[in-house]
Amino acid sequence: MSLVIVGSLAFDTIETPEERREKIVGGSCTYCSLAASFFTSPKIVGVVGEDFPQETIDLFKKRKIDMQGLEFAEGKTFHWEGLYGHDPNQRTTVRLDLNVFADFKPQLPPSYKGAELVFLANIHPELQEDIRIQFTNPEWMAMDTITHWIENNRKSLLGVLKRCHLFFCNDEEIKLLTDEINLLKAGKKILEMGPAYVVIKKGEHGALMLGKDFVFGVLAHPCEEVIDPTGAGDSFAGGFLGYLDSVKKVNEQELRKAAVFGSVMASFAIEDFGIERFKSLTLPEVRKRFSEFRKFVTF
Amino acid sequence: MSLVIVGSLAFDTIETPEERREKIVGGSCTYCSLAASFFTSPKIVGVVGEDFPQETIDLFKKRKIDMQGLEFAEGKTFHWEGLYGHDPNQRTTVRLDLNVFADFKPQLPPSYKGAELVFLANIHPELQEDIRIQFTNPEWMAMDTITHWIENNRKSLLGVLKRCHLFFCNDEEIKLLTDEINLLKAGKKILEMGPAYVVIKKGEHGALMLGKDFVFGVLAHPCEEVIDPTGAGDSFAGGFLGYLDSVKKVNEQELRKAAVFGSVMASFAIEDFGIERFKSLTLPEVRKRFSEFRKFVTF
Repeated sequence: MSLVIVGSLAFDTIETPEERREKIVGGSCTYCSLAASFFTSPKIVGVVGEDFPQETIDLFKKRKIDMQGLEFAEGKTFHWEGLYGHDPNQRTTVRLDLNVFADFKPQLPPSYKGAELVFLANIHPELQEDIRIQFTNPEWMAMDTITHWIENNRKSLLGVLKRCHLFFCNDEEIKLLTDEINLLKAGKKILEMGPAYVVIKKGEHGALMLGKDFVFGVLAHPCEEVIDPTGAGDSFAGGFLGYLDSVKKVNEQELRKAAVFGSVMASFAIEDFGIERFKSLTLPEVRKRFSEFRKFVTF
Repeated sequence: MSLVIVGSLAFDTIETPEERREKIVGGSCTYCSLAASFFTSPKIVGVVGEDFPQETIDLFKKRKIDMQGLEFAEGKTFHWEGLYGHDPNQRTTVRLDLNVFADFKPQLPPSYKGAELVFLANIHPELQEDIRIQFTNPEWMAMDTITHWIENNRKSLLGVLKRCHLFFCNDEEIKLLTDEINLLKAGKKILEMGPAYVVIKKGEHGALMLGKDFVFGVLAHPCEEVIDPTGAGDSFAGGFLGYLDSVKKVNEQELRKAAVFGSVMASFAIEDFGIERFKSLTLPEVRKRFSEFRKFVTF
């Protein structure tokens, strides 16, 4: 198959109870494509400003990420500032500067249009739709979102959701979207809205995946030190979709493994600030942790 | 082996957002012994008043629960009243009448003293200690507690904990007891306090078990309707210890299965108010759900 990832490339300013980091590289597309690159060569769609570091571009090259769809625009890169509490699941957005993202109207490179697997990471749902319709015949369209769009752009969001096959969300988002506190019921509601599968990420509690005929649960890797939770969800999606792309098929068995690889990649992402951990990560480490996940739940 | 369960037999008044039930049978010993009775014939230690229903005594008999250690005292049975929010993990104690429990000073029947497996369910830690020392040579001493004793009787609690091999707690309790928000770190701290194993129950998110050399995670059964969360933790302990007693050995492999059987029994307990579900439950249903747990996490 061929995987296209659409999303943000950003500078993140992150404050945890222990440390503050100013303007380190982040963004949904960044995390997702780096995580996916351990399984396949993803193509990315996004925009960066003149201040985006060459070092990260070089990292993308090294990890064989296809940057034909990456726009280099005049101005500054998108900037997000977030604050984490002692509970890593609690996060507040302190500041958001759209910068070059404000006028982003991506046109897909011709080589992208036939992609079988597409991930519309968290961006404005109308932008997701503009991009979605440019693909000629994607077999598997996946998407993510955040509470902001659920609260403020529900109608457009539901429009994209209807056309998607795979929906990634977290527990807070799905409760808000479906007005249902029980995750199983909430997941079933999503399956009636369009997607064939829904993956509910639950932070330190793992993730739940629902299809029409099955429910699969994956635990989060037991982790003693969460350094920076930013990008865990996008890394999950990257591992998940990268794995699916590499096996070139989507069925229950592969989806279960994909969810575990998603958890594996998320567990690495949080071990250091920003994308640091992905710089040194190796495929044997990824495979080793996959085995640890199996051992963790085997009885 | 032989399993003795020490704890409360009670009337519970329970209010959920949907329904209120007045004075239905509950108590840690009740839930735990009923859950354990699907695997073994537990012996119980506790006290009831003159108002305790014969129907429940008959149920205990039917389920082959040994009641030699059950005291029938003059006065009223212990009564607890609790209120649940929309989130079943949120519970408030509205009222507590100790009644016959206030003067409970149990003397173990001679046939109980040689038990290899003992569970000190949630009661005052000093009472736990008084009972603990009556056992001649228990191979496996397990205990549970609640935040109330951690806050008000920490010293006595730590004394019992030091002598126990297996500690059951929930996430809130272990965080309070260890002053550590990370469950893995918190669990390791407990292992330094005495127990060889700690089981951290996380409600709808399942449970985490730690030993010196391993970590095991079990998810909660995906459940669309939590009718009454009361007794889930005690039923978990009952399934866990009942299974261990039935296989007559304690090792990592059996402990993993025990944790799953714990989750299985907890998942049944919450399907109806009080102990209702255990009245109709059958062993084939228990086995079927155990298989479903395996399928739920298999990849």
